[in-house]
Amino acid sequence: MTRAPATPSSSATHPPAAVPLSTGSLWLVPAPLDFGCDVEVPLQHLMPQGTLEVTARLSHWVCENAKSTRAYLKRVNALVSLSRPIQEHMITELPRAVHKKGDHQGEYDARGLLQAALDGHDIGLISEAGMPALADPGVSVVRAAHQLGLCVRPLVGPSSLPLAMAASGLNGQQFSFVGYLPAQAQERAQRLRELETVAQRTGTAQWFIETPYRNAALWDSLLQVLAPTTRLACCSGLTLPEQQVECHEVQTWKRRAAPTALHRPTVFGLGL
Amino acid sequence: MTRAPATPSSSATHPPAAVPLSTGSLWLVPAPLDFGCDVEVPLQHLMPQGTLEVTARLSHWVCENAKSTRAYLKRVNALVSLSRPIQEHMITELPRAVHKKGDHQGEYDARGLLQAALDGHDIGLISEAGMPALADPGVSVVRAAHQLGLCVRPLVGPSSLPLAMAASGLNGQQFSFVGYLPAQAQERAQRLRELETVAQRTGTAQWFIETPYRNAALWDSLLQVLAPTTRLACCSGLTLPEQQVECHEVQTWKRRAAPTALHRPTVFGLGL
Repeated sequence: MTRAPATPSSSATHPPAAVPLSTGSLWLVPAPLDFGCDVEVPLQHLMPQGTLEVTARLSHWVCENAKSTRAYLKRVNALVSLSRPIQEHMITELPRAVHKKGDHQGEYDARGLLQAALDGHDIGLISEAGMPALADPGVSVVRAAHQLGLCVRPLVGPSSLPLAMAASGLNGQQFSFVGYLPAQAQERAQRLRELETVAQRTGTAQWFIETPYRNAALWDSLLQVLAPTTRLACCSGLTLPEQQVECHEVQTWKRRAAPTALHRPTVFGLGL
Repeated sequence: MTRAPATPSSSATHPPAAVPLSTGSLWLVPAPLDFGCDVEVPLQHLMPQGTLEVTARLSHWVCENAKSTRAYLKRVNALVSLSRPIQEHMITELPRAVHKKGDHQGEYDARGLLQAALDGHDIGLISEAGMPALADPGVSVVRAAHQLGLCVRPLVGPSSLPLAMAASGLNGQQFSFVGYLPAQAQERAQRLRELETVAQRTGTAQWFIETPYRNAALWDSLLQVLAPTTRLACCSGLTLPEQQVECHEVQTWKRRAAPTALHRPTVFGLGL
């Protein structure tokens, strides 16, 4: 039985008997949502001091991309001094097949990536933006940590899904996130009709994302396919200066200009 | 078309033409997850400075409970001075019927609660713990804000659902949150079988919550009802010193002691 104190200053951990007392934890390290955007949001606006302090203390990483992990650590270092110079950090990238194809069911056996934790080092799991393993790679690493009996400790920070869901006014007690929609137009329209039918039948809000360069095409499809009274939430550029969060009936959206921030990462939702 | 800057220091807002330029925004203000617990987590560990600064600047509130809102503002004031003394704040509680029965579909017409925003004041929406309108009351208020053309601005802070989902190692690309399960044992067992069937058929992780005093009974039911190889995540006391986050197959859980933090708020998930 493992227990995970909320912060490094909290009470001692109690790892299971089979694991050495010095076993490290797997920390889930949130990253800001400005990755790939031409703007940098001040970290202190978005990251709790506790999260920055843990991030600065870690020197073993599993990540999507080592270069962007180093770039983020430089931003952290400007606020909280890193415990070690960046060039001394051990940064391991998830195998390309895992973070390209996705490891959402944890199909990949990532236990080998966690050897440093078995050797007593805390490890940080970090993705390009937001919370790792939530609409993002890393599930296989978290699963491997549980298999190995390591403490898994999620840190508070920005994550686009909960921000969008809360700000939408769609059902916050029953909702589903379905990931990406099909890229092909007809299949996408068919999938949207399915999601709308589920929402109408069950009241469950349906959430999905798209690669930003396809957002405009998805938006056209949404207005074409959905019923006039279906509510449609469009949450773009969350936490960025140009953040745009709106939710209206489709018939209302049709009378308006398209959202102006669709070139930014966007979370879409529909419901009653 | 409204645009919502991420922070008060960001570029100017562009409210729709029909709304006076001085219209206030609806800020979604996260609260720490220690409500009702006998421990107080240091706010600076969990709340970004930007979130605390916005919270301290607000003086109009819509909330579940005025007393706990005041208690939280006192904690904020210890870190960032409030712009006005607490006794001068305008604090409006959601009608009891709304926050008891739930307003997850936004059935309640909450536009009357947002008059202060139409008069030019920013309003904070806050619940007892975590993010308002996400597995919590407030959906009707957010919906009313969109109807009125107000900017809705979610603030980064702790929220138990995304922390649990990321830390579970269950599918992070397809998941559903279904709220509370039936309290009656047979109905609960039936509902759990339904959720497990959906997870098996679609690979979608299924998430739910329970009132803490019923967590132990739910746990027994989970171990009785679910298949041996179904993965079961139990995430208790998130962000608290005794936080416990584990995910194992049901057959593994059966060989272990029950989780020790089930008396704390807990998020449960199941999947493949």
